[in-house]
Parts: sequence; C-alpha cells; structure tokens
Amino acid sequence: MTTGASIYPDEMDKGATSNHMGIGRMLIMWRRSVYKVVYQELIVFLLLFGILSVVYRFVLNNDQKKYFEQSKVFFQSYIDHLSVPFLLGFYVTTVAGRWWQQYLTIPWPDRLMLAIQIYITSDQEPIRELRQGLVRRSLLMLVLLLRSISPAVRRRYPTLHSLVLDGVMTRKEKQSFESIVPVVNLFWVSATWFATALQDAVSDGMLTNEYGTKLIMEEFLEFRANCGALWSYNWVSIPMIYTQVCTLSTYSYFIACLVARQYTGPSHQSLQDIDIVLPIGTVMELVCYVGLLKVAEQIKNPFGDSDEDFDLNFLITRHLRVVYLFCSFFNFHHSFIFVK
Amino acid sequence: MTTGASIYPDEMDKGATSNHMGIGRMLIMWRRSVYKVVYQELIVFLLLFGILSVVYRFVLNNDQKKYFEQSKVFFQSYIDHLSVPFLLGFYVTTVAGRWWQQYLTIPWPDRLMLAIQIYITSDQEPIRELRQGLVRRSLLMLVLLLRSISPAVRRRYPTLHSLVLDGVMTRKEKQSFESIVPVVNLFWVSATWFATALQDAVSDGMLTNEYGTKLIMEEFLEFRANCGALWSYNWVSIPMIYTQVCTLSTYSYFIACLVARQYTGPSHQSLQDIDIVLPIGTVMELVCYVGLLKVAEQIKNPFGDSDEDFDLNFLITRHLRVVYLFCSFFNFHHSFIFVK
Amino acid sequence: MTTGASIYPDEMDKGATSNHMGIGRMLIMWRRSVYKVVYQELIVFLLLFGILSVVYRFVLNNDQKKYFEQSKVFFQSYIDHLSVPFLLGFYVTTVAGRWWQQYLTIPWPDRLMLAIQIYITSDQEPIRELRQGLVRRSLLMLVLLLRSISPAVRRRYPTLHSLVLDGVMTRKEKQSFESIVPVVNLFWVSATWFATALQDAVSDGMLTNEYGTKLIMEEFLEFRANCGALWSYNWVSIPMIYTQVCTLSTYSYFIACLVARQYTGPSHQSLQDIDIVLPIGTVMELVCYVGLLKVAEQIKNPFGDSDEDFDLNFLITRHLRVVYLFCSFFNFHHSFIFVK
Amino acid sequence: MTTGASIYPDEMDKGATSNHMGIGRMLIMWRRSVYKVVYQELIVFLLLFGILSVVYRFVLNNDQKKYFEQSKVFFQSYIDHLSVPFLLGFYVTTVAGRWWQQYLTIPWPDRLMLAIQIYITSDQEPIRELRQGLVRRSLLMLVLLLRSISPAVRRRYPTLHSLVLDGVMTRKEKQSFESIVPVVNLFWVSATWFATALQDAVSDGMLTNEYGTKLIMEEFLEFRANCGALWSYNWVSIPMIYTQVCTLSTYSYFIACLVARQYTGPSHQSLQDIDIVLPIGTVMELVCYVGLLKVAEQIKNPFGDSDEDFDLNFLITRHLRVVYLFCSFFNFHHSFIFVK
Amino acid sequence: MTTGASIYPDEMDKGATSNHMGIGRMLIMWRRSVYKVVYQELIVFLLLFGILSVVYRFVLNNDQKKYFEQSKVFFQSYIDHLSVPFLLGFYVTTVAGRWWQQYLTIPWPDRLMLAIQIYITSDQEPIRELRQGLVRRSLLMLVLLLRSISPAVRRRYPTLHSLVLDGVMTRKEKQSFESIVPVVNLFWVSATWFATALQDAVSDGMLTNEYGTKLIMEEFLEFRANCGALWSYNWVSIPMIYTQVCTLSTYSYFIACLVARQYTGPSHQSLQDIDIVLPIGTVMELVCYVGLLKVAEQIKNPFGDSDEDFDLNFLITRHLRVVYLFCSFFNFHHSFIFVK
Repeated sequence: MTTGASIYPDEMDKGATSNHMGIGRMLIMWRRSVYKVVYQELIVFLLLFGILSVVYRFVLNNDQKKYFEQSKVFFQSYIDHLSVPFLLGFYVTTVAGRWWQQYLTIPWPDRLMLAIQIYITSDQEPIRELRQGLVRRSLLMLVLLLRSISPAVRRRYPTLHSLVLDGVMTRKEKQSFESIVPVVNLFWVSATWFATALQDAVSDGMLTNEYGTKLIMEEFLEFRANCGALWSYNWVSIPMIYTQVCTLSTYSYFIACLVARQYTGPSHQSLQDIDIVLPIGTVMELVCYVGLLKVAEQIKNPFGDSDEDFDLNFLITRHLRVVYLFCSFFNFHHSFIFVK
Repeated sequence: MTTGASIYPDEMDKGATSNHMGIGRMLIMWRRSVYKVVYQELIVFLLLFGILSVVYRFVLNNDQKKYFEQSKVFFQSYIDHLSVPFLLGFYVTTVAGRWWQQYLTIPWPDRLMLAIQIYITSDQEPIRELRQGLVRRSLLMLVLLLRSISPAVRRRYPTLHSLVLDGVMTRKEKQSFESIVPVVNLFWVSATWFATALQDAVSDGMLTNEYGTKLIMEEFLEFRANCGALWSYNWVSIPMIYTQVCTLSTYSYFIACLVARQYTGPSHQSLQDIDIVLPIGTVMELVCYVGLLKVAEQIKNPFGDSDEDFDLNFLITRHLRVVYLFCSFFNFHHSFIFVK
Repeated sequence: MTTGASIYPDEMDKGATSNHMGIGRMLIMWRRSVYKVVYQELIVFLLLFGILSVVYRFVLNNDQKKYFEQSKVFFQSYIDHLSVPFLLGFYVTTVAGRWWQQYLTIPWPDRLMLAIQIYITSDQEPIRELRQGLVRRSLLMLVLLLRSISPAVRRRYPTLHSLVLDGVMTRKEKQSFESIVPVVNLFWVSATWFATALQDAVSDGMLTNEYGTKLIMEEFLEFRANCGALWSYNWVSIPMIYTQVCTLSTYSYFIACLVARQYTGPSHQSLQDIDIVLPIGTVMELVCYVGLLKVAEQIKNPFGDSDEDFDLNFLITRHLRVVYLFCSFFNFHHSFIFVK
Repeated sequence: MTTGASIYPDEMDKGATSNHMGIGRMLIMWRRSVYKVVYQELIVFLLLFGILSVVYRFVLNNDQKKYFEQSKVFFQSYIDHLSVPFLLGFYVTTVAGRWWQQYLTIPWPDRLMLAIQIYITSDQEPIRELRQGLVRRSLLMLVLLLRSISPAVRRRYPTLHSLVLDGVMTRKEKQSFESIVPVVNLFWVSATWFATALQDAVSDGMLTNEYGTKLIMEEFLEFRANCGALWSYNWVSIPMIYTQVCTLSTYSYFIACLVARQYTGPSHQSLQDIDIVLPIGTVMELVCYVGLLKVAEQIKNPFGDSDEDFDLNFLITRHLRVVYLFCSFFNFHHSFIFVK
Repeated sequence: MTTGASIYPDEMDKGATSNHMGIGRMLIMWRRSVYKVVYQELIVFLLLFGILSVVYRFVLNNDQKKYFEQSKVFFQSYIDHLSVPFLLGFYVTTVAGRWWQQYLTIPWPDRLMLAIQIYITSDQEPIRELRQGLVRRSLLMLVLLLRSISPAVRRRYPTLHSLVLDGVMTRKEKQSFESIVPVVNLFWVSATWFATALQDAVSDGMLTNEYGTKLIMEEFLEFRANCGALWSYNWVSIPMIYTQVCTLSTYSYFIACLVARQYTGPSHQSLQDIDIVLPIGTVMELVCYVGLLKVAEQIKNPFGDSDEDFDLNFLITRHLRVVYLFCSFFNFHHSFIFVK
C-alpha cells in the first residue's frame, strides 16, 4: 500500500495555526483571514458608495438633494430596526456547533487496529494479510464515503481505478462494486466485505477468541456508525430559510447603508456631522458582519475546499501511512523491541 | 421484497442542496425559500397597508388625519417596546436543536444487518430466510412507527395491506396485528416478533454463538430505543405557550406596523420623512421575522410534508433496497468476491 | 393485572396537538394557551390601570396632576433600564432544556421486556409467572417513584392498597414494604426484589444463560438509573434566586407600567400622545412576558397537574396494558403467528 | 454501621421547595431568597445614596451643585454604555450549566449494590461481610473525596477517626491510609482496597461467576470515574477573569448609579424629573443584577455551605442508611418476602 | 520510576482558588486577574487618550477644534452601531465550552490501573513488571502526546532522553521510536507496545481470564481515544475568522473611543458634559471587553503557559506518583491491610 499524496509531517504536530499566533500577527495575515472572504463585497460597496456620493454632490440639483436627504433619513430608520448582530450571533453559534460535531464524527481507524492487533496475533503470512485486509476495508469504506461528500477527496480519487492504484481497493473489489446497480450510495458495501472477511477468519480458525470477534465487531460497528453519521450530516443541512434570512438581512442592511451613511451636510437633527469621504465605521461593520456570514457559509459544509475546511486528504494520507507502519513495521521488529 | 416507490439515486450523494449553492442563487430560488413561506402574509400586509394609506390620504378630513397621526405615534411606541428578534432568536435556536436531535434519532438498520451477517452465516435457504426475516421485522417496526407519526409515510402505506404488498409485512403478521385490540400504539409488536424469531433460531440451532445472540440483541435494542424516542418526540412537543408568545408578538408587531409605518407628512419630531408608497424596510423585516417564525413552525414537526421535512419515504425506499441487496446479492457472489 | 384508568387509544398516535394545528387555530384556542395562564394577571392589571386613569382624570387637582405626570416620567425611565425580555430569554431557555431532559429520563419498560423475552422463553406456568413478576416489579419501582414526585400519580394511587388493587403490587410486598421504617424514599426496594427474583430464577435453573442474566441485569440497571435520575431532578431544582429575579423584574416592570403608560395629555417631549382608554401595547407585552414566565413556572416541575405537564397516568396505563399484552397474549398465539 | 447525623425523612420526598410554592409565597420568603444574598449590598448602597443626596441638597453651594449635575450626566452616559444584563445572562447560563453537570456527576452506590446483590448471593456470614465490605469501601471513597472538596462534609468528619466511629472506615484501613505519605489526594486508595477485596473473593471461591465479576467491576469503574470527575470540577473552575469582568461591571454600574440617579432638580433635558427620596427603580435593578451575580458565585462551587449548595451530608446519611438496610434487613426477611 | 518535578501536595486538595475567595479579595488580586491581561492595552490607551486631549486643548486653533468636535460626533455614531458586548458574549460562551470539553477529555490512568489490578493479581516479580509496564506505556502515550501539543510539557521533557531519565520510557523503546521515520505524529506507537505486551501476557499464561483481557482492552481503548481527541482539539481550532471579527471589533471600538470620549466643552446636544481628565467609564469598558477577549484568547489553547491553562506537568507528576504507589506500595502491604 503506497500513499499517493505528498506527506507534510510538521502540520499535525504544530496544531491549529491560530492557537500560536500573537494578536498582532493574526490581525494582519491574509490566508484564512476575514479580509480574504469579504474583500469582494467591500470593493463593490465602496464603489457604489463613491458613485452615490459623487452623484449627490455634483449631479443633483437642490430639489433632488432635498429628496436624497429625506431618503437618507428613511434608510437610517430602516437600519435602526434591523438586528443584524443579534441574528448573526445565534446563527453562527448554531452553525459552529454543528461544524465541530462533524469534525468529532470523522472516524479514525486506530481503535479498530488495536483491537485487531491484540486478538489476531500471529506473524504468519496469511494472518498478516488478514490483518491488513480488515483495516484496508474499513479505510476503503471511509474513502468511498468521503469521495461522495467532499470535492477535495473526489479530486484526489476521481475514479475507482485511482483507488486501486493507491492500494486502497483491490481489482476484485472494484469489479464487484461496479457490478451493483448504483441506486443508492454504496459506501457501506465495504462494511459487508469486512464482515465477510472476519467471518471467514473465524471459520478458518485464524481468529479463535470469541471475545476478540465481539470486540473487533463492536469497534467496527462504531466506525461504521460514524461513517453513516457523516453521510447524514451531508444529507440534511441547516434549514435553508435560516441561512436566507441571515443573508438577506445582512446584505439589505448594507444596501441601506449606501444611502443612510452618506454625508448630506449638517442636518437639523445631529448638528455636527462630519464630511468624510471614506465611511470607516460602515466599513468596519461590513468586515465584521459579512465576515461572520461568510465563515458560517464556509463551515456549514466543512468538507469542501475553503480555508476553514477539514484537510481530509491529509487525514487519509495519515491513515494510509499509519496502516502501512502498523502492518509491516511493528511486527517485523516485534521480537527485539519487547525484550525487557 | 420489492420497492414500490421510484428510486432517485442521485439525491443522497449530492447532499443537502443548500451546501453547494452560491449565495446569489440561494437568494433568488423559490423552492424551500423564505419567499415561499411568507408570500401570503406579505400580500395581506401590503394590501392592508395600501388601503390604510389610501384612506388616510383621500378619505379622512383634517381632524381625522390628526387623530390618525396620533395613533401612528402610539403604535410606534408599541413597536419600540417589543423585542421580536430577541424572542425569535431564542425560540428558533431551541426548535432547531430539537429538530436536529430528531434527525439523529431516526434509526438505520445497517449496524443490525452487519451484526446479523457476521453471526448468522450459512448460505442455506432456511438461514437466508431467517436473516431476511430478522431485518424485515426491524424495518417493519420502523415503518409502523413512521406511519403513525408522519402523514407522508401514511400516504405511501395507507393500509396494512399496502405493507403486505410492498413485502414489508407478511399476511400472517397482518392477521396477528389486527387481532390485537388497538388500545395503544402497537409498533412495538414487531419487536416482539423479532425477539421470537431470534429465540427460535437459537433453539433450532441456527444461531449457536452466545456472543452473537447478545450482540444482535444489543443492536436491536438500540434500534428499538430509537423508535421509542421518535415516538416520544412526537408525543410531547415544545410547550405550546412558547410558540404562542412568539407568534403573537411577531404578528402584533406587524399589525402595529400597518399604522406606525404610514407616511403622514413631515412630522414635528423627525423632520425629514420621505413620502414613499412601498415600505421597503418593513417588508424586509416581515420577510425576515415571519420567515424565521415559519421555519420554526415547519421544523417543529419534521415528519410532515413541508419542504424542510425529512424525506422519510426516500429513507424507507433506501432501506428496502439495501436490505434486498444485502439478502440476495452479496451472498450469491460471496465465493468469487473474496478470492484474494 | 388490570388497568384502573380509562384508556384513550387515540391520544398517543396523534402526537402533540400543537404540531398539527394551523397558526390561526393555535392563536384562538384556550386549553394550554397563553391566555389561560395570564388572564388573572391581566384582569388585575386592567382594573388597577383603569382606577388610576379615573383618579388622574377626575379626582386629582392640577398640582396633583403635575406630580402624577412627573411620576410617570420617573417610571418610564425605570422601564427603560430593565431588560425583561433578555432575562426571560435566558431563563426560559434554561428551564425548557431541563424540562426536556426530564422527559427523556422517564424510563420505559420495553427494552427490559424484550431482553426478558429472548432469554426466558418457555411457556410453562412458573416461567410465565417469573416473566410477569420481573416486569411488574420494575413497573412497581417506577410507580412508587412517581407517586412520591407527582401529585397526579399520587391521586391515582393514594395508598399502597390501591397499588395492590391495580395489580402492580402484591399483598406480601405491601407488608414487607410497610415493615421498613420509612427513613428515606424507598422506591428502590422494588429493585432489590427484582434482583432477588432474578437470582432465584438462576439458582432454580429457569434462567441458564449467563449472557442473558447479564443483559437483563444491564437493562434493569439502566431502568433503575433513570428512576434515580428522575428523583434527582425532583430533589434539586433551578436555583430559586434565578426564578425570583426573573419574577421580580417582570412583575415590577408591569407595576411601573401602571403609571408609566397612563395618558397624561400632550407632553412636551413626545408631542402626539394619543388619548386611549385601553393600553393595547402594554397588554400585548403583559401577555407575552407574563406568559413566558408562567410557562417556565409550569415546566420547571413537569410532574404536576398543569396543562403542559407530562401525562404520567396515561403512561402508567400504557405500560400496564403493554405488559398485560406481552405476558398473556403473545405467548398464547406464539405457535400460529410464526409459521413462516 | 450507624449513622451519626440526624435523619430527616421528609426532605427527599417533598422535592425541591421552589417547585411547590406559589409565586406569591416565593416572592416574600427569606431563606434561599434573593433578598438574603443582596441585603448587605443594598444597605450600603442606600446609605451612600442618602449621604450623597443630603450633601447635594444641604452642603453644596451653587457652583458645586452645577459641577455635581455635570458629574451626573457623565455617569449617566457611563451607565448607558455598559451591558450588565447581557454579560450576566451569558455568565449565569454558563455557571448554571456547570452546576447541574456537577450534581449529575455525584455517584450513587445503588447500581453497584444491585450488581453485587445479584452475583454474590449466599446468606453465610463471610459472604454477608464481603458484600458489606465492598459497598462500604466504595462509600468510603466517596466520603474521602467529599471531605477534601466540601467544607460541610469535612465538618461532619473532621478526622479519619470520625470516619472509623461512623463505621465507614475500619481501624486497619485508617492505619494503612495514614502510612502513605500524603503527596497527592488519596481518595482513590479506597478503590484499590475494593479491587483487592473483589479479587480475594474470586480467588476464595466466593464469587465464581466471571460475568458477575465483570459487571461489578464495570459498575465500580463508573463509580470511580464519577468521583474523579467531581475532583476535576473542583480543581479547575470557570476562568477567574470571566468572573472578575462580570463582578467589576456590575459593581461599577451601581457605583455610577450613586451619582447618576440622584435627583438634581428639573433638568433641561428631561423636563419632568420627580423629586423622590428612594430610588425605587435602581433598588430593583440592584436586587436583580447583584442577586444574579451572587447566585452565580454560590453555585460556582456547589459543595460549600450556602443555601443553594447540595446537601451532601444528607446524601451521605441516606447512603449509609440504605446500605444498612440492604446488608442486614433484606437478606434476613429474604425467605418470607418472596414466597409468591 | 522517579518523578523529576517537585511535588506540591496541597494544590490538588484545595481546589480552584477562585472558589474560595471572597469577592473583595478576588477584585484586588493580580495573578490570574483581568488587570494582568489588560494592563498593557490600558496603558497604551491612556497614553494616546492623553496626547489627543493635550493636542485638542493646547495645540489646535478654533477651526481645527471645530473639525475635531465633528470627528467626535462621527466616532460616537460609529460606537453606537457596534455590538461589542453581544459579539463577545457569544464568542466567549463558545470558547469556554470548548475549553471545558478539552479538560474533560484529558485521560486519567486510574480506571485502567484498577482493571489491571483486579485481573493481573500475583505478587511474583515478572507479573509485577508486567503490571508496571502496561501502566507505564499508557502514561508514555499520554506524555508523548502532551509533548507535541503543550510547550510546558515539552520544556519538562525536551528530548526523548529526558523521558528515559524520568523512567517513563525505556532505552529500547527510545531506540525503536527513533527508528521510525517521523512522517506523522507518533504518540500512538506506545499504544501498539501496550497491545503487544498484553498479547504476550496472554500467550505466556500470565493473564488467563478472557473477560479480564477484554475489560483491560476496553479501558485502554478509551484512554487511547481520549488521547486522539486531545490531538484533534489541537489540530482544528475555533474558525480563525470568528476570532478575527471579535478582535477587530473590540479594538476598533476603543480606537474610536479615543476621539469619541474626549471632552470638547458643553455641546449643543447634551448640555452638561463634564470636563474630566480620566475617562473612567471608558477605562472600565476597556477592562471588561478587552479582558473577555484576552481570556478567550488564553483558553482557546489551554495547553500553553498562561495562567488559566491546565497544569499538565502537575498532572503528569501526580500520575507518575500514583503509578509508583500503585505498583510498589500496595502489593507489599497487601496481606496485612486486608486482614478483616
């Protein structure tokens, strides 16, 4: 089994970048930053704001100016009625909770491997193959599932053949898989193969411990259940109307700001307005609120390609690598390591 | 066992639609959209708003106008006292959490199938029938339960006879089921049949592994417990007063808006009101707040017919299909697939 | 075992009423409604408001009116400082979460019954009695517990004798139970009887499967743990100060409103107050906020008699009925049902 | 084994007091009330407020009055910027969630007792002693732990000798416990004794059922894990800065109120201030906000002495009493109770 | 096995400091206090505020003053639009929940030790070594993991050699560990060694109880799973944009305050501004909001060096000490302790 993707050993050990940055560096970086996700909206906003400002100052006559100023007050009252930060606060909290649950749901093969190691012990060739086959099939299930929910993993494994090349699937399995009419998502077929292999191992006398069979099976059922849960998260998302309401109110807030935050000379109400060209306050608001909306949009489906998405390809590479070490390396050095 | 409903293979793989749409497309689509759920309220609101506006401008005399303007101020103060977004924020968060818990509670037969596969192994006809019978009975329990809580599933299976036609229930089972006086919900009767069949398998020597019996039983008890939990979610809902309070305050807010947002000429207080026909700001508020209220109404009972409800009929079809594959296909190809 | 209470078969199947009502019907119904819980407060409020209004208009002289108008401003500023909806939002969310946890904690005997069915199988009379005795004792524990925490259940079973009449307790058990000095809540005594009966079954050779004993015991321990958890919920409630603070601020808010919302003629500040007799806005606020407070009060202790409380007597009747069906009916029809 | 503390049998059955009180009684009671926790702060506040009021009216000359009035406006603006109810809402929700988790974490010996009862059955004297010894050691672990985290339990058992007197610890165990250099919290030593006793029972043939050993051990490990979790809750609390920020902003809010809520004659801004001596509104605010802060302070460490803390000594007495009943009573009456 | 770090026996028993302090002492202490985390920001703020104040009063001419006053109004309106406390409330709640989950995830070896004690019982030398070896390897896994995620633990154990010196790792294991190409985090290698040692114990007849093997394995898999979960928490953190938005809005709020809270003489709007040198209100706001932001920053990665971080080195020392006691002390005194 070889790993097709490049390995980047440091990434996992150093942990999430944001944990170790100072506040200063965090505020000026670009990758994964709020600036990157909002800059398009910001440019459009500033452009429109500038055009409106120019039109008001140099194009409109006095009557039209009067009308514009009245529009401004109208839009200002609109802004005061909306509760954008409140809606976003609840929405982001809900989405972020769901995002983290999904991360915790991604199954890891390590517990299953340990259960297999303790109960299927011999160093003989067929038993080594059995061990490897069991772990490989559970990984295959995970990869098949991730292919169907993550564009990134599908790019890595565009066809079943690429799975065969990477050693995750055998040719026979590919044939068998393709012979099924694909009416529904079929990632669970690999679970059936796992069960059949385990059952063969029992009937062939390679796995004689009943407790072992049960423990391996329990661990595998957990692995299977997590795969199913990931699929469920993908099938049903946050109710779309919730997302729409938050998006609508945020964008309409800033459309209203285009007029409401224009400088229209000293008004009767607030006597000391200041004639500025750049509406700094509104820009900060836009960065914050649209930034929150965008991060919610990204983490709503964390199996995609955006910066905050889980690096599933790295995880797959890690698992392949660990399985490789587990199957070949440790049993080879077995005798010499454990001389006490 | 045949599946009566049409199969739509792509749906499950592509995941929730809202995950893959751009923001632009999301804001203009109709199906599942906030516009669809609020358009009736919106039309009524605009109609009443227009009538009031016409009456004020063309019907009322000056004294009556004065009185109307005073009413406007009165309703404006009412609007300022209400905290509609705040109430809705807490309410929607509570309802959405409950909705997701219900989704995760829907039991899947896959774990049970794997446990049966590993411990009840032979290819002989009676044992194949035993396997199929066990899985079918657990599915039958799920379908009987869903019939009683979901109108959509009840439409698919209007009578017990339709269950027999679809192969989910046998004729004998139907007779037996009908012979019980239906004093309480009886979906759990199928669980009794499952247990009896398993017990027969043990006493007939078809299932000799004690560990296997325990593992199958444990998995089945989980399946049973989830069915019971779904029933519990249906029996007791969010306290109705909570729903009433949110609905009342939202609707009364917009009834007050009918008067409070009318244009009544430049007032003494805010000097630059603008004479507009369409109260855009209020329309946006109505879309957002009534939209949230409606989505909460829909997902409060997610087993119904609305757009955001779980597609239970598709799930049932998927399970029937998978059980069919599991029971006939894999064991047939057994020998050739697992040649290593 | 007979059931003393009347059976209402439809209730469980139709689910929570509020799930299937239209919004219109929901807003006008009385049972379980917000109107029912707030009407007393509302009448008192309107009475006092009216008296104050009459006093101000017809009793007070000009100087006193001046003083009253100043009081009004004072109370208005008080109202602005309080954050009633905010406090209530957090409070109701906390209470509602706890309420739902309690509902999920109520144990159901169904899992235990299935475990007993699969491992204690014979149709002989003593074994049927054993089965029934085991299930009955677990139900007895639940009923004894519910009697001590729910007034409704205590009304149904006012004495231990009524338990004997309903077949939930035997005469011997009643004697034994009464012979214990009641220093602490004794619902758990029935669990001891269950264990003793199971232990006797093992030593008498009626239950020979070790796995079965363990599975039955595990299920029973879960049942026991849930009973204990229900008791714990009853023993320690939401910290009372939290409730007091929310109640105090809500009521003092409306006491302040009695003065603050009076009509005192066109003021200098807001020029167009309107002379109305009925303070509609304040009434809506009272319905919403006091309604929320009252629903929190009700669901804080969901084992009582109010409309939103769990219908424990119905649940007990359901369990008695299901146990009856389980013990007599199914084994009688056993042979004919499961002819494949 | 005798119980040193007095038994109050009614307390557990009647449940949390606050569940059964009317709203009226709740608002006027003193014990556990918000008045009790805030009265000191309230007296200090009113004293200072009165002094300031007297100074302003009778001591200051006109220029100083002018300055005072300006200070008042300054502090009023400060008050408007702070979000005390908001901060407190989030803080109290967090603390209350943690408080309830701790309550659910307190382990109960009942499940363990049932598991012991079912598998260690004989009425012979050494086996009765074994049963009692096992349960006693698990209780000893709980008491040792609670002594180190709860001042109330430490007062009940000031020395190890008092544990011996109460029958929870034997003399031998006390010697052994004291012979260990107390480098770390040693409550877990009792768990080791439990395991040793169980192991002896197996090797002496008093416990022959392997399944029984495993079930007892699993239950005991749960008991042990809960003790460890309680200790963990005690070791790490809510981040102190969070508490500080909430405390600081609440107290500084009311310090600002001392000036900001003074009556300074009819101002230019709000024309109708009212000359009142007692700032009722501010008093209500103080009762609510300081009350919430204080209840959070109390329930942050629920093992102390305050009114809302868990009554651990009562729980210990209850457990001792139940263990006594379990060990002596039931087995004595065994034969006569279970005559069917 | 010796412990390299100094032992401080009192710390664990006295619990979290903040639980036992009075409110007064809490507000004035420095260590772990909000003052310590915000004093730098506070000094910078006051410095800039003072400079601006001096410039306005003594440097600017009248026209420039006019412009400055207009800027002030502009920044004031900006401040009113931002919802800093709201954003921080949601953010801190999310981060604090994650922080506590991480704390509960740290695995403790105590359950595993008890399971080993009960099933691997003899006092013979090789079996004592087996016991010690098993517990040591699980601790080694924990330490290897913590080294890679916590700078504090890495300082304690800068090299693998320091682990050998402290007795946590053997020389052989170090050689073996270093012979693996470090492509991915390798803490799990120690789990493989644990499994191999357990497997050897079974094949050598030192562990004959099948149930024991399964229970030990189940406990170890839990320990392993918690290590993996800790690693997962380190790999993926709170979405960085969320942190950025909160940081940005907090800091920009106080930058705006630099101008907006300057004294600019009696304005037309609020007639009685007060000329103060120190903006006390703004300072309190800065302490509160920046304090919350900083505590969130600290507890986002609780394995670091800041005051609120978990004292992992103390935990490791505690575990080493307990394992030492467990392995040598108790079995030595075994016979004399348990004479009943």
